[in-house]
Order: sequence, then structure tokens, then C-alpha cells
Amino acid sequence: MRNTKINIERRKNKKTKPAPENLGFGTVYSDHMFIMDYSTEKGWHSPKITPYGPISLDPGTSVFQYAQSVFDGFKAYRTEDNRILIFRPEENLKRLNASCDRLCIPSIDEEFVLKAVKQLVDIDQDWIPTLKGTSLYIRPYIIATDVSLSVTPSKTYKFIMILSPVGAYYSEGFNPVGINVEETYARAVKGGTGAAKTAGNYSPGYKAQEKASEKGNAQVLWLDAIEKKYIEEVGSMNVFFKINNEVITPPLNGTILSGITRMSVIELLKYWNVPVYERDITIEEVHQAYVNGGLEEVFGAGTAAVIAPIGQLNWGDQEMVINNKQTGGLSQKLFDTLIGIQTGKLEDPFNWTVEVEKELTL
Amino acid sequence: MRNTKINIERRKNKKTKPAPENLGFGTVYSDHMFIMDYSTEKGWHSPKITPYGPISLDPGTSVFQYAQSVFDGFKAYRTEDNRILIFRPEENLKRLNASCDRLCIPSIDEEFVLKAVKQLVDIDQDWIPTLKGTSLYIRPYIIATDVSLSVTPSKTYKFIMILSPVGAYYSEGFNPVGINVEETYARAVKGGTGAAKTAGNYSPGYKAQEKASEKGNAQVLWLDAIEKKYIEEVGSMNVFFKINNEVITPPLNGTILSGITRMSVIELLKYWNVPVYERDITIEEVHQAYVNGGLEEVFGAGTAAVIAPIGQLNWGDQEMVINNKQTGGLSQKLFDTLIGIQTGKLEDPFNWTVEVEKELTL
Repeated sequence: MRNTKINIERRKNKKTKPAPENLGFGTVYSDHMFIMDYSTEKGWHSPKITPYGPISLDPGTSVFQYAQSVFDGFKAYRTEDNRILIFRPEENLKRLNASCDRLCIPSIDEEFVLKAVKQLVDIDQDWIPTLKGTSLYIRPYIIATDVSLSVTPSKTYKFIMILSPVGAYYSEGFNPVGINVEETYARAVKGGTGAAKTAGNYSPGYKAQEKASEKGNAQVLWLDAIEKKYIEEVGSMNVFFKINNEVITPPLNGTILSGITRMSVIELLKYWNVPVYERDITIEEVHQAYVNGGLEEVFGAGTAAVIAPIGQLNWGDQEMVINNKQTGGLSQKLFDTLIGIQTGKLEDPFNWTVEVEKELTL
Repeated sequence: MRNTKINIERRKNKKTKPAPENLGFGTVYSDHMFIMDYSTEKGWHSPKITPYGPISLDPGTSVFQYAQSVFDGFKAYRTEDNRILIFRPEENLKRLNASCDRLCIPSIDEEFVLKAVKQLVDIDQDWIPTLKGTSLYIRPYIIATDVSLSVTPSKTYKFIMILSPVGAYYSEGFNPVGINVEETYARAVKGGTGAAKTAGNYSPGYKAQEKASEKGNAQVLWLDAIEKKYIEEVGSMNVFFKINNEVITPPLNGTILSGITRMSVIELLKYWNVPVYERDITIEEVHQAYVNGGLEEVFGAGTAAVIAPIGQLNWGDQEMVINNKQTGGLSQKLFDTLIGIQTGKLEDPFNWTVEVEKELTL
């Protein structure tokens, strides 16, 4: 469908924009959205950009029943010289297709959808906030739309893409947060869906998140489901440990999401000649490093927060305070560099950003 | 909310009913549905029965993103003397609340919802099919309705209950089916959501189901995620093995759904003095019993199919043909007894069925 024309219906009256100081995460949406449909006969078809508004579904729609639903998320930024940059969208769309495969959802044409992303962002470009720490979050998702209670893959789907001007993900801002090491609940297991961005991977974590919050922690550190010793992810981010001047992150072993920010952090570290290893790391090893004074920095990496420094790890009775609860030098440098590249303030030696060309405007 | 009045808006023109011979599973819905809403301030409120029709949701609604969604399912039958019986609805509503708890969804008032079930079934009672093997399937479900991309429990929800006249779940009817023993994909792990009826537990099984279908099997037999040796469930049913005159079913260890049909089968077997054990059983033990000639019957048990006899288990290269691919005596007796009680043809010594009283009619 590479050359399919996207039908565009523009909104008559634009919505009021929120104050950039008060942006939360994904509560306000832009003026338009992108939708296309899938059927077995037509494949993905009827792509259109329409005014943002409710969708109407039969109560027997299968997504409500069996969560055949995947999503992804990435961001657009406006540069000081008024260009629009999107951070590594090709990687997110590739991952979206991997998620589709895991849930038996038909794949999308990544090149076509990238065109749709650019067109939608272009049309709603006055929704890109420019205040420090803000961006326009792009959320594509796909839902099963067959009206059926049969536990089988749907034959019809909707691809929907919405835009939300967002502020910092954590209300704490870019300050180190406390994390609870979860030893009862599990996020994912080999053979499950942990490596895919399925809707069903997220709400099962709420219970552990509530437990963490009750103890005053911002997030959960997930251990492997089998031995409860190998570190997997933190909240909905990948996690990195700086121990004795080396950086370690768990490998992509089938239970961990392949984060685009994770990938970018690894590439940056290699570019800077900082030793970085994708390898198994146990909570016991982290604790030992802490006891020996070698645990220098811990941080999460994900699209929403970019880099989230971790100031304290709570593992049972053990309270590991990291870098005196201050943002570490490497965490800060990674954050500044990533944000710098994303917003066009720094050079982009990796060609990570994709520009929304001006001639797109219709 | 026990005494809250359910607002009723009746449909003006009734829909055309499908021929009872051609009922599938959950593709046709009755004339009305039940809906109520939840907010932090009001709790569950505004219960109503309205004409069955589409619901309208903001595309940023959190259920689409993070699958905070649970459901349950049970059936209503019309007896030959024109009464309406519902099979063990209290158990399903109790389980629905357990599912809610796992996903941080506010609990429902089971007694009130049972009242709503009766009222809805009463209003749409001409949708209860009477042909052998048919019933009116009742599907209550709850979805998170906050418009937010934040990975946190919603503050608002919708409880929806729909009714679907259904035929036999398997197109094969009550005939033994082939089952593929799945050794790669996992359904659930300790600490996950396997014991709850969450939407997100179902679509992750599609991939293994596709694999099974390609090999000509109707369903998947799930093994434990950790050692891939202990038997868990079959497709979306619990599973029973009759070996040397004893019946064995895996225990409720946190990864297996607590099936109401499972519970009823166990109670019936005890009532009949058939030895029945809830205990760990490995696929190797089943295979050994097969080799020794002791594997007499295998069957699934669940609301949709009631009892599903299994004629062949395919485990890697091993093809275990069970009871010459014929329905076993115990499977048949359980099916006949359960259906007999459900349809009021047999006595109900356990008080399992709940009658929809005539005076409900408004």
C-alpha cells in the first residue's frame, strides 16, 4: 500500500491547547488522528486522517475480551530553528510489526505508516510543545475488531495513531527515584509475550506497582519469573547498572522489551568507548557491588522518561542508596545527549532523527 | 448498591433471531445489554439495561493500551417445563471479583450483579435457544475507561454484560479432538495472571493455537512455563486424565484458572465415589500411563464446551491415541449429567442452578 493516498478530513475548529507547564503524560490529544482498517479480503485499507474523536465499537468486539492489541510509542520534537524531528520512528515501527507477529496480528507496511506519521505530525505540528522536557508523543496501536467471543485471532483490525503533547513522565522530574525489587509478582516468562509490546503486558504489573508505591517507591524492578534472581526491567523501562566503570544491562533473552532508548544508550556508550555489556545480572551481584562500593549509577531507559536515574533500590530489607541519591554523571550525560539529539541541539552522528519535511504541508 | 434500581430502556423493534441450527459461539447478541459505570467518587453507579448497541470510546482510552480488562462467562438454559435456569452464577461472579483484584479493578457487588443477570436474562428470555447443545451465554466484562496513556490503574471503568445464544463450541461437536502438547510457548507463570480471567491471558495463546491447528489439532495442551513438564490447561479449559480408574487434574497452584466446570466435575466425581485427585501431573506420567495401557480417558472441562473429550495427544513425535478416539464412558456420563442438571432434565442435588423467577418480568 506504499502509494495509497491518505484521505484527509480536517477539523473545523481547533481545540484549546493546554499550558505547556501542566502537561501530564497522555491525557490531552491533538486535533487529528490517523486510522486505517484491516480485513482479510482488503488487507490494510482506507487510511485516513480525521478529527480526533470517539470510536464506536460493538460491545462484543474481541479486543475487549481477549486483548489482541499491540502498541508502540515515540516522540516528535521542534528544533530551535523550527524543524520537526522524530526520534528513530523506523525502529518503533519495526518493533510494532514484531509485536503484531507475536499476537497473530497482520503486519503493517512500515514505510507507508512512517509516511502517515509524518503527515499526521505535520498537520498537528502546532501541538508540538517546546518547553524543556516536553515533546509530542506518538502512539500507534492496533486492536482486534471482530465481533466474536471465539478465542481465535480476529479477521478484522483497526490501526489507530494518536498524538499527545507530554511533559516529564515522572512528577518527580529528572530526579533519582526509589525502586522496589519485586519478589512475588512476575512480569514475563520465556515463551510468553514479554519481548513484545502487547497491551496485556502492562496492567498485570499494576499490583506490584501498587505495592511499590505503598512503600514510597516510584517503580518496580522486575526479576526473572523462574529463579527470581536475574534482573529484567524497571517499571516499563529497560535498566542499566554502572559498576566499577562498566555498564551492564540485561540481554534480550525473550522476556525483555527491546527498547529503542536502550539500543540508543548502548550505541552512545560504545561511541564514547565506555565498556557496556548485555549480559545476565543478578540482584545479588548488584547488592554485592553496592556492599563493595562499586555500584556507581543505576538508571532506567525508555521513550517516555528517556533516562530515569534511580536513587535507591529496595530489595527486601536491603536499602541500597545509589550515588547519594544524586543523578550520576553518566546518567546526566546520556540524558543531555539523547535530548540534545532529539531536539536538534546536538549533532546527530547516527542519523537517528527523521525530519518531517516542510513540503508535506497540504 | 444492593437496592439500587436498574434503569430499563427497552428496544422498540426486536432483532431477528438466528436459526438455532446455525449458532456459532458469540457472534450474535440479544436485544439488550446491561451497563454500569465506576468512578472513584461514585463507586459503581448508574446501572441500566439498554438496547444492545455500540459503545463510544475515546481513542486514548486505557483499555486499548494496557488491557486492564477482566471477564467471565456462564450460561442460561430453558427447561422443558419452561423455567429458566442459570448454572452457578454466584461462582462466576465471585471469580470475576478475584480477577478484578488481580488487575486492581474495583470489586463489584456480587449480589447486585446477580440481580442484574436475572433481570437481563428475563427481559431477553426469548433469546434462550432450546435445541440440544444450545444455551444463552452470559458474558460480563469490565474495562478501564480513563483517557490516559499513564501505565497506572484507571480511575473509571465500565461493567458491560451481553447475552449470546450459542451452539456447540467446537464445530466438531461432542466428538474427541486432537490436542498438541505445546513445548515452546507459555501460557502463565507463578506471580503472573494465569489464575485470573483477564483479557490479556487469551490472545498470547493464539500463536500456539495456530501451530496446533497447522498440525490438525483442535487445541493446545499447556505445560508449566518453568520446567515444561507439568500439565496446566488445555486451550481455555481445565483438563482431566482418567488413569487406571482414577481421575487426576492439575491443582490450583496460581497459574491455572479455577474453572466452575472443573469444580463441578470434581464434586460430581466425589458424589459418585470415583477417586479424583487434584495433584501435579507431568506429561511424562501421562505418556507412561499411555504406554502401559492405563490412560483411559482425557477430557477438557469449561463453560463453553462443558466437557470436551480428547481423542489424541500429540507430544513431539509421540502420538497418544486415547480410547480409540471414542468418547469415554466417564466423559459421556459427566457431559450428560452436567447438561442434564443445567437444562433441568436431571435432579440438581447440589443446588447448582439458579432459577430466574417469573415475577421478575416487568
